Parts: sequence; C-alpha cells; structure tokens
Amino acid sequence: IVSKLPAVGTTIFSQMSQLAAEQQAINLSQGFPDFAADSQLLAALARHSSAGLNQYAPMPGVPLLLQQIAALTARCYGRTLDESREIIVTSGATEALFVAIQMLVQPGDEVLLFDPAYDSYSPAIQLAGGVPVHLRLEAPDYRVDWQQVATRLTPRTKLIIVNSPHNPTGMVFSHADWLALQHLVTQHGLYCLSDEVYEHMVYDAAPRLSANCFAELAARSVIVSSFGKTFHVTGWKLGYAVAPAALMTEFRKIHQYVTFSSFTPAQYAIAEMLREQPQQVTELAAFYQHKRDQFRQALSASRFSLLPCQGTYFQLLDYSAIAPELDDLSFCRYLTIEHKVAAIPLSVFYQHGSNARIIRLCFAKQDTTLAQAAEVLCRL
Amino acid sequence: IVSKLPAVGTTIFSQMSQLAAEQQAINLSQGFPDFAADSQLLAALARHSSAGLNQYAPMPGVPLLLQQIAALTARCYGRTLDESREIIVTSGATEALFVAIQMLVQPGDEVLLFDPAYDSYSPAIQLAGGVPVHLRLEAPDYRVDWQQVATRLTPRTKLIIVNSPHNPTGMVFSHADWLALQHLVTQHGLYCLSDEVYEHMVYDAAPRLSANCFAELAARSVIVSSFGKTFHVTGWKLGYAVAPAALMTEFRKIHQYVTFSSFTPAQYAIAEMLREQPQQVTELAAFYQHKRDQFRQALSASRFSLLPCQGTYFQLLDYSAIAPELDDLSFCRYLTIEHKVAAIPLSVFYQHGSNARIIRLCFAKQDTTLAQAAEVLCRL
Ligand SMILES: CSCCC(=O)C(=O)O
Ligand SMILES: CSCCC(=O)C(=O)O
Repeated sequence: IVSKLPAVGTTIFSQMSQLAAEQQAINLSQGFPDFAADSQLLAALARHSSAGLNQYAPMPGVPLLLQQIAALTARCYGRTLDESREIIVTSGATEALFVAIQMLVQPGDEVLLFDPAYDSYSPAIQLAGGVPVHLRLEAPDYRVDWQQVATRLTPRTKLIIVNSPHNPTGMVFSHADWLALQHLVTQHGLYCLSDEVYEHMVYDAAPRLSANCFAELAARSVIVSSFGKTFHVTGWKLGYAVAPAALMTEFRKIHQYVTFSSFTPAQYAIAEMLREQPQQVTELAAFYQHKRDQFRQALSASRFSLLPCQGTYFQLLDYSAIAPELDDLSFCRYLTIEHKVAAIPLSVFYQHGSNARIIRLCFAKQDTTLAQAAEVLCRL
Repeated sequence: IVSKLPAVGTTIFSQMSQLAAEQQAINLSQGFPDFAADSQLLAALARHSSAGLNQYAPMPGVPLLLQQIAALTARCYGRTLDESREIIVTSGATEALFVAIQMLVQPGDEVLLFDPAYDSYSPAIQLAGGVPVHLRLEAPDYRVDWQQVATRLTPRTKLIIVNSPHNPTGMVFSHADWLALQHLVTQHGLYCLSDEVYEHMVYDAAPRLSANCFAELAARSVIVSSFGKTFHVTGWKLGYAVAPAALMTEFRKIHQYVTFSSFTPAQYAIAEMLREQPQQVTELAAFYQHKRDQFRQALSASRFSLLPCQGTYFQLLDYSAIAPELDDLSFCRYLTIEHKVAAIPLSVFYQHGSNARIIRLCFAKQDTTLAQAAEVLCRL
C-alpha cells in the first residue's frame, strides 16, 4: 500500500504524553487540563445519559446546542447566526478542521498557512490533494507580515488558514490583522479557515475579536471552535464550525460521511452549561490569565527567557542560555527524562523544522502543578 | 465553491427520522433502539467521567478497551490480535469506514461494492478520488454471485467493500461466500473493507463468521465494528477497526488528523462492560432474534410479503400487493403521514435507484412498539 501521508509519524503530542507517563514526569506537553471539569457539567452528562439520550443526535447537532452556539456567538461577537443553516457540531475541532479542508480544497489548490502551525492542517490539505504553502512567523512576536503574505498568492491559492489565539506561540491577532486578512480574502476571492479553539483565552483586556466580527470575512470563512478546550474536557471531542449557509451545506454533506454525529449526551450537557452558566465562558480568560501570570512570575527567576503570551494556554520558553548545544527535541527529551517535566519542541510545528532553542509548555494545570514545574525549571 | 459531493443530499435516515418526529409516527426508519441501554453501562459512563477521565484518550484508543477488543476477537473468532498495533478505536464505525477508504483508495482506483449499499461508502470513495463500481444484488435473497464479481475486475480495482450481516437486506455471508471473497482478494491482490457492524446479530444458529476467521483474507482486510450497535447506544459514536499492522499504521496516520481520539469516558465504560458482562455480546443474537420472530409473526397476517432476514436488525417488506402504483419513497412518506409508521425506502441504497416495491423496517424496538407498528401495518 502506498502511504497517503509518507512523512507523518505519530504526533508529537502522543509521543511526549507517553514519554511523560513512562517517566512519571509533570506533563506540560500535550495541551489539556490536569484539573477536574465543572461538577455541574459532569452531572449533566450523567443525567442526560441516564435519561436515555443515547441514540444518534441529528447530523448537524442537537438543536438545543445549536441554539446555544448561536446565542454565544451573538453575545461574544454580535453576529446573528441562522442556527439551522450556519452551524454544525463536530467530533472535536480536529474533525471540523479536517472536513472544512476536504470541502474547500480541490486537487492542486494552494493553501496558505503560517508556521509554526498546528500539526493537523498540512496532512489534511495533502489528503485533499492540495498544496500547503507555509509562511514563517518569526520569534519573539510571531506577527503576520500581511504584505509578505500577498506576495505568496498565485492563481491556485484557494484558502488561507489562520489561528488566533495562536497555538503554539500565544500570538493574538490585532484589529489591524483581522482587517488585513479580510482585505486579502475579499480582494483575491480566497476562503478562510479560522481556527479559534482558544478564542476565550485572550489576556490583558485585549478586545475579543474573531472572524465572526468582520462581516465580509465571515461571509467567506469557516470558523472552528472547541468545547473541549472551553469546558476543560478535551477528551469529549466536541467542537463546532460556523459558516455561511452555502458553505455549511457542503460541510454537512462531508461531515455526514466522516462521523455523521457526535456523542449525544455531551451535546445536551454542554448546551445546559451554556444556558445556565454562560459566565463560565467569559470568565475563562481571567482564570487562565491568573495561571499564566503565576507561571511567568515563577519562571522569571529561571535561566529560561519567556516569550510573549497574549492568549492560549501555552507559554514558549527559550532555553538557549541553558543548553544551546541541544536541539529542541533533544532538550524536551532531556527535560522529561532527567528533570521530569515534559514539554513540546517548537520545531515540530514547522514544515522544515527550526533550529530555534524554544519549547512550549501548557499552563492549563493546577497551581500546584505549575509551581512544582517552575521549581524544577528554575533549578536548571 | 465546487461541490465535492454534488449528488448528495441529506441522508434518508435524517430525513425520515425528522418526518417521523413531525408526524409523531412510530419511527422504524433510522436504525437505532428505542429502549434503554444497560444501566451498568450508563453508570460506568457517569462514574468514569466523575472520576476525571475527561481528557484526550490515547490516539489509538484507551489501552483497556484495546485489550478487551482483542479478547472479544479471540473469543468470537479465534483470532489473536496484537492490541498495540492491529486495533484502533474510532468515532463510530462511520469514521472507521471513512478513514479506511481514504487510506486505501488513490485517485482513479476502482472500488467494488454491492447495491443495495450503506450510503456512506460511495461518497467516501468519491472524496478519495476513487471510482465506485456498483454490483447489484437481487431480491429476495440478495446473494453475491462471485463469478460475476470476478468479471468486473480491472487493473484499477483496488478494494472490495463487503457488509455481512448486510444492511439493509439482512443477508449473511455463508462460509462459501467468505471463501470466495478470500480467493478473489488474494488472487487479485485486492484489499477488503469488511463492514461488520451487525456481527453479533446473526440468527437461526448460523455459524458466526467474519473476515477475522479467514487468515489470508484478514491479512488484506480492514474490519470495522460498532459498539453503538452492540450496546444499544448509537449516539455514543464509538466503533473500532482491526487491520494488520502495516495497514493499521497508515490508518492511524489518517485517523489522528480526522478526529484524533474518541469520547474518553465511554471508552472506559465499554471496556468495563466487555470485561464484566461479556455474555451481553453473545446473547445479543437471541435478544434480536426474538424481536425478529415476533415482528415477522405479527406481520404474517398483513398483505406485505416478508423477505428473508438472517441477520441485522432490519426487515424488508414488499408492499406490491398494497400499493403497486407508489414508488418506495412515496410509499414511505404515505406510510409515515397517513399511518404514522416510518420506514426507509430500499431504492435509496442503489446507485441508480430501484423500482422494487420494498421498504426497510428497523426492529430494534420495544416489543410494544413493534406490536403497535405491526397492528397498523396489518390494517393496510
Ligand atoms: C489532539 S492532541 C493535541 C492537543 C493540542 O491541541 C496541543 O497540545 O497543541
Ligand atoms: C448514521 S444514521 C444511519 C443508521 C443506520 O445505520 C441505518 O439506519 O442504516
């Protein structure tokens, strides 16, 4: 059999989580919380499941959840969605990203994306027969140079993938970034896939922006988000996508043959939380900002240098003052095995690697976990 | 945007379930139980979720569940699997079918499949750039003519998709069928995708056969099954696939970018059931055979003629003595709207339709539901 993804191995997230488990290390590698989800959410899951809501959900999602997504989008961004035609619930944001790419990319189409990039974009483009065109963002700010982006357009450019707040760098698009993106997309008739899974984790009172806020951009965008990240249940694999009806029709056609529908009782449980505890979503930024601040404060005594973090639950650290001779994968292995703290090397987010001495740590952890990890890291 | 699936609309299953709900009809259309799942299963879900197992499962599935799948495969079919390399848990059997097809089918490859066919196969083939080659099975037995299959092979034939027990006809492969399939696959270097989601619903003491039972076939097969169907929780969207390690490596590469992993607490709950209540799987055939027999008995007084049902939870009915002038979609709509019983028209399972006067009814329903439906159907 000829491999469709010859260059792909097991994701770094699985590799590092496994190494962390073997080494009984503090796992700050794969992005997931180490604390409990809200007990009301877990009780709701149990209640809806016991009540018998265990059969296929409607293919686009449970109507109660679609309504709550529409209400959330209106509250956060002032955008009014037609919940029956412009929203879909997916089996995690990963499925939403995958389906959006299969829908939009024809063989030979070029797709612009920014390195460092989340690892699923490029394989999904390849599976659709498209050509990923990687643009590099540079440390320490990882800001997009929109004029440079424009120089990379060709007649085959179909889609641009953006991700703000940005994993792994924590960069958050400014209002000017969104406007530049909107201009690019509308001027050149592109489509936009906006991965906004960290949308509720934006710090320092920055304005809450999204492709949802820019009408002409939104008219050509698939916008993806994640309940797993927002409600601290990454293993629930529940996300959603928003798109204009014409795109959503095509999205649903593909989704119905990829997973058809997603875990029914969880859809009811999340809908209940969004209705009864809407403030949990808006309070998420403060919750994680506190963790970011504590963690950065604790690390300020270390020999790592901290890169900016405007959003997400990831912090980049430059270790060149500690072990400049080690590449970042070696340094992560060393850190996990010798010091029992697992992290993700930044270079894996680049098409052709990177020789920066930078690692990514996830701070979606209990304060005690973060304090322990920081103590270790300060000893290096 | 150019549609990747121009011919596709909303699945008939969604359409008919929605019509049934609007009409407050007894819903024997989409295949799902109307009775509660085992309370131990639901309690296990709640317990594992409360205990905090809500973050990403390992990408191939929770090890405890992989072990139980290996044990089940050994018990049912005597096949020993390497649980770390030959099994994967998926977000429903639909995802497993989709990923297997993306993995095996290159643009231009031909894929043999049998009409009537489950509706996801052909779109998944098209999304991979493959060419579906439909072979028709004929009423009332819907048996495969293996000599005719051989005449449809070309140098581009890559894959054959089989489904035994067969949805929608209830046909079950005999030992001779499996041997003929194995011969075809090995002689011509094909791959086989064996959709066995109804594997535990085989009636009349027929031997329990599977691609797992035929070593040379299994060496070239992806075998797909469904916990949703076996444990009466179709909305849990939990299935699995089994394949030799070389194929499974490629399967996992794609799966990790399609959904990455599946609902974690459900994986633990199903693993617990397989360990503590293994007899539930083996007793499933008797449970559904009883329903089949009751339902067929009740319908014997009707003007429908009953087609054979060797397996699955579907019963085909020929209505040509009742309304020969109506095509099957019209008849299903008439039945739902006028008589409040929803069914699926058989013609939707054919590439080019069918003018047979046959409908599919799902008997995964409470005895009282089936009795009510039968009473209505006998009045026609
Ligand atoms: C699906 S595992 C990866 C989780 C994640 O989003 C990350 O760690 O970046
Ligand atoms: C995914 S909805 C279809 C359910 C089913 O398997 C059927 O009714 O045939």
